[in-house]
Amino acid sequence: MHPLDEATALAGAPGDPVRRGRTSDAYWTFIGPFGGTSAATALRAVLEHPDRDGDPLAVTVNFCAPIERGEYAVHVRRARANRSSQHWQVEFRQGASEDAVLTASIVTAVRREGWNHQPARAPALPPFDTLPAFDNRSSLSWVAQYGLRFAEGIPSPSEEGNAEPLRSPRSLLWIQDGVPRPLDFLSLLAMSDAFFGRIFQVIGRIPPFGTVSMTTHFHAAADELAAHGDAPLAALADARVFHRSFCDQSAELYGAGGQLLATSTQIAYFRA
Amino acid sequence: MHPLDEATALAGAPGDPVRRGRTSDAYWTFIGPFGGTSAATALRAVLEHPDRDGDPLAVTVNFCAPIERGEYAVHVRRARANRSSQHWQVEFRQGASEDAVLTASIVTAVRREGWNHQPARAPALPPFDTLPAFDNRSSLSWVAQYGLRFAEGIPSPSEEGNAEPLRSPRSLLWIQDGVPRPLDFLSLLAMSDAFFGRIFQVIGRIPPFGTVSMTTHFHAAADELAAHGDAPLAALADARVFHRSFCDQSAELYGAGGQLLATSTQIAYFRA
Repeated sequence: MHPLDEATALAGAPGDPVRRGRTSDAYWTFIGPFGGTSAATALRAVLEHPDRDGDPLAVTVNFCAPIERGEYAVHVRRARANRSSQHWQVEFRQGASEDAVLTASIVTAVRREGWNHQPARAPALPPFDTLPAFDNRSSLSWVAQYGLRFAEGIPSPSEEGNAEPLRSPRSLLWIQDGVPRPLDFLSLLAMSDAFFGRIFQVIGRIPPFGTVSMTTHFHAAADELAAHGDAPLAALADARVFHRSFCDQSAELYGAGGQLLATSTQIAYFRA
Repeated sequence: MHPLDEATALAGAPGDPVRRGRTSDAYWTFIGPFGGTSAATALRAVLEHPDRDGDPLAVTVNFCAPIERGEYAVHVRRARANRSSQHWQVEFRQGASEDAVLTASIVTAVRREGWNHQPARAPALPPFDTLPAFDNRSSLSWVAQYGLRFAEGIPSPSEEGNAEPLRSPRSLLWIQDGVPRPLDFLSLLAMSDAFFGRIFQVIGRIPPFGTVSMTTHFHAAADELAAHGDAPLAALADARVFHRSFCDQSAELYGAGGQLLATSTQIAYFRA
């Protein structure tokens, strides 16, 4: 079983209103599970539900509190079902008090053929094989789950304190699962959170930092992701503002032929 | 009373788990209320709640179904309260079946002073007074609630069918409430949805179109919005992809001195 499938596995029958997830040491950050796998677990709860129809379109995940190592309850509710779209709510609860540790809203929809147009262009990256693999053997476990090749904005510590001058928050890179896995919505969602906090890029050190809320929009259907296979994705990560202890972060992920597969935006806490 | 305050007013006591909203003819689209006022109404339900602490940071609104003219129930629930952040869920229900017509998640947080940095730059717009006011006297009622001055990408129909060549989805403009109102989170959230569907800009006609999900991140505290007053905001609206009946849309809103106040992204349905 692929580590991502293990990390996002759910106990209980797919139609149950409450299922159970379990954190994975294979995707661990400083203080809890990697947010990308938590998001993918919430999405899995919806995709496996027998009443689900259509492909995921929009996923918003709010990280309410650190998830502690171990089990948590996954509450799944369909708030609305239309002819070709559905609105789902997911909530993770943990501990004796059953406090919410994560909330998510997930919209699914049936996509129809029609007029297509992509004004956005994939970043012009050097070929995958010509770039060195990012050395993540001694990184946090979640980082080591990804194959990363940076063309621009490679994470690196500055000599001391804040980098002088400050660096650009922008990174351009190839990204793929370290253990090859055909692309699907679960892995694409997890990858949309797999860019180092931009503040590390800007100041050259890792301050206390945590994503508060992440929204990912999918721009392709299941058959298009399947056709992409396990090839790396071209990605762009950037940020626009760091202000009064919160910052933003955005990402674009492109597949074969430069097709934009997903865009993502998050707001994160920092103390610098 | 300002039309925005009238459109977002809630009946029932601020601490009630269910309050009542009412659609406003002053902000009407083709088939329902303007999404920006619906989003602002959900936000008002949280901001007025006696247990709310901190400024809004992230708002995601899912438009589940058209809201019909008249009253609807506004369910408000605090899913999690931390020392300096809170996670709220809002749901609008309407009709005899009490079906969900809108869901929203709203994160509030206490902002602290610290290191600030804004890589993003406000668009270089010609001065407000030098640009003509967009003529919206015969527009949909919600459009007429805004003062708009376009520097680039002014909405205009093409002669017939799709524009040839296709136009850029990007618009640069000044935006303000038509009836002056000091900026706050309610008006800023509503404005983040006040850009015409980018597909109109690209193809030069208005096809069947509707926002499915919108996420707005705030990057300023209440005192900073208050200090801005009722001056116009510099705004950028853009889109990256139109694919298989769904498209994205993004916006940046800048205040005095070029401060980035809010960023927004949405995914919308279209049939073209």
